[in-house]
Amino acid sequence: MVSATSQTPPKPDLKPGDRIGILGGGQLGRMLALDAIRLGLVPVVYCQDRSEPAVIPAEAVVTGAWDDEEALDRFAALAQVCTFEFENIPAEAVARVAAKTIVRPDPRALRIAQDRLSEKTFLNGIGIGTTGFAAVGNGSDLNRAIEKVGLPSVLKTRRMGYDGKGQVRLMAREDREDAWEQIGRAPAILEAFVSFRRELSVIVARGTGGQIAVFDPVENEHRNHVLSRTLAPALLSVEQDGNARGIAAQIVTALDYVGVMGVELFETQEGRLLVNEIAPRVHNSGHWTQDACPVSQFEQHVRAVAGWPLGDTERHSDAIMENLLGDGVDAWAGHLAAPGTVLHLYGKAKARAGRKMGHINRIYPKGARPH
Amino acid sequence: MVSATSQTPPKPDLKPGDRIGILGGGQLGRMLALDAIRLGLVPVVYCQDRSEPAVIPAEAVVTGAWDDEEALDRFAALAQVCTFEFENIPAEAVARVAAKTIVRPDPRALRIAQDRLSEKTFLNGIGIGTTGFAAVGNGSDLNRAIEKVGLPSVLKTRRMGYDGKGQVRLMAREDREDAWEQIGRAPAILEAFVSFRRELSVIVARGTGGQIAVFDPVENEHRNHVLSRTLAPALLSVEQDGNARGIAAQIVTALDYVGVMGVELFETQEGRLLVNEIAPRVHNSGHWTQDACPVSQFEQHVRAVAGWPLGDTERHSDAIMENLLGDGVDAWAGHLAAPGTVLHLYGKAKARAGRKMGHINRIYPKGARPH
Repeated sequence: MVSATSQTPPKPDLKPGDRIGILGGGQLGRMLALDAIRLGLVPVVYCQDRSEPAVIPAEAVVTGAWDDEEALDRFAALAQVCTFEFENIPAEAVARVAAKTIVRPDPRALRIAQDRLSEKTFLNGIGIGTTGFAAVGNGSDLNRAIEKVGLPSVLKTRRMGYDGKGQVRLMAREDREDAWEQIGRAPAILEAFVSFRRELSVIVARGTGGQIAVFDPVENEHRNHVLSRTLAPALLSVEQDGNARGIAAQIVTALDYVGVMGVELFETQEGRLLVNEIAPRVHNSGHWTQDACPVSQFEQHVRAVAGWPLGDTERHSDAIMENLLGDGVDAWAGHLAAPGTVLHLYGKAKARAGRKMGHINRIYPKGARPH
Repeated sequence: MVSATSQTPPKPDLKPGDRIGILGGGQLGRMLALDAIRLGLVPVVYCQDRSEPAVIPAEAVVTGAWDDEEALDRFAALAQVCTFEFENIPAEAVARVAAKTIVRPDPRALRIAQDRLSEKTFLNGIGIGTTGFAAVGNGSDLNRAIEKVGLPSVLKTRRMGYDGKGQVRLMAREDREDAWEQIGRAPAILEAFVSFRRELSVIVARGTGGQIAVFDPVENEHRNHVLSRTLAPALLSVEQDGNARGIAAQIVTALDYVGVMGVELFETQEGRLLVNEIAPRVHNSGHWTQDACPVSQFEQHVRAVAGWPLGDTERHSDAIMENLLGDGVDAWAGHLAAPGTVLHLYGKAKARAGRKMGHINRIYPKGARPH
């Protein structure tokens, strides 16, 4: 679905043959690079190590630490436009690149999403519901936060949290010191525990001309805090579907965002939608689009970042995406033999427990996805 | 459709992380490389020039002439298995590589397909109909050939013909010297002119275990002897559909072939199917599979060459593939803005007239393709 807010497609910025820079060398960068190549662009990657997944499809690779200013400058000089595939890149590194070339999305979205407190404050500020929360800077803050938020609740570091890292459940007031210790006494946020019915997400894109396109909202299943499966589309009421899309569109508009964003939602027991977090990048719960839509989330992000018109997000098939975690990747040969199943492997050498090694998309005729 | 001739999938040969070598650096090599990466394999490419389309996604590139034995040996040493993307590679170059590593398909198929005379002789030998033909080695052969084949007919060089190159129509006996001159007095074949109703093709694959998979037969439209559009699927009678698939399966079985093959067919005015030529590689008329099937012809070829089970060829959508030739590629931005349209650009710098610069796949719900 592409909204009609922008009648004329924006004037193309990049031309085929131009270089698109990707900060980060993980699987998201790899899949961005593959779609960029198909579209006639030339991907260049900044990462730490030549063994990272995005290195093979990259035309050029600059390796360096996130504080290696000389390497960042060399990278920025290579690309007509840059983006990032990972939201824990230090803001200073992105700012360094943004001083030399165009960075999309704007680093402001990254700064907001990197800090759970500023993220939720921003969302509430534009009228979007989240769980209740309070800032925790020290032990006495935590006491006050428990008064405000209640129990049970979840204590999370403000920064660097993903896949369940940096968070601990707080059941009773007397566990507060332990919890505070467990997250390393870092600046934190206490969030009310939501007994949710389902976890949903929306992959939304916004172009340089303000055009917005939303993929069908999906339902996500987690195991050990890591995404296990995405069911596309989610079965939603017309009202929920509209709300989910509307929330996503409102967020990218408020941020004057350019690119793809993943918006994670909780559905409460009452059917209300709350935003859990926003990811200012392509998102694991959008991988199903690769094989069920004419334009994937990766192509969509490349289009937006390139200043090109957004693509058609209407799915042609239903899909179930399943992550291959750790030694789950050993089942690759079986997946290859299964009908209607598309295998994506990330080229990682070591299958550490829980590590995202690849994913499969099982494709079904529209309306025929099993539950 | 995957046939049931092989009950147990063949034992995988390559593992994720292994290298697949591709002889030839054109767009077919580029698209093979992109799908190989997605499947966790590492593509390495042999080509003449670092500006060729397959260079960007390749992890390693060996440049050299087709008779550079040292370079071919270096290339062969890199890859666990090799294939080719182009049928006019000198047989000696392929043999050189085959002496050092596994080459799939077997170079025998390449030798047969490189020579129009051996190709048609082989096909007739296994009972498959072609146009009438006769070998032409010199001027007096041409006289005898006209007696046998009749007029009008088409004089073609036996070797190095593609996209209408190396062929001339012969309308009258007195034009024979001119025609012979025009094709450079090379060893030739005279083929009866077929007044055909449609040009069709079948993309077929055969795995290392003898398993065969066929994509839906398609209809092709040519302009100036170059493929212009592919309509998928072709509208065929049940009998024609079965015949087309059966012919393709018979050919790959007779050759003990491993990989994807394009089989070009003529439909005569009477509805009979004749084989025009076979291409022992992925084929332009199979590009529609990239966006209308769970497994594309490129993935299918990689699977076969890797010794992996063949993939599901059942389409989820109808499609029209349109080649972007020469400065036709300038319409790229318009294609990006069209719903249900997927753009593929090959990264070629110069848009010479008629040069294949990219293609688009327009996707339609199954059964809803316009005519």
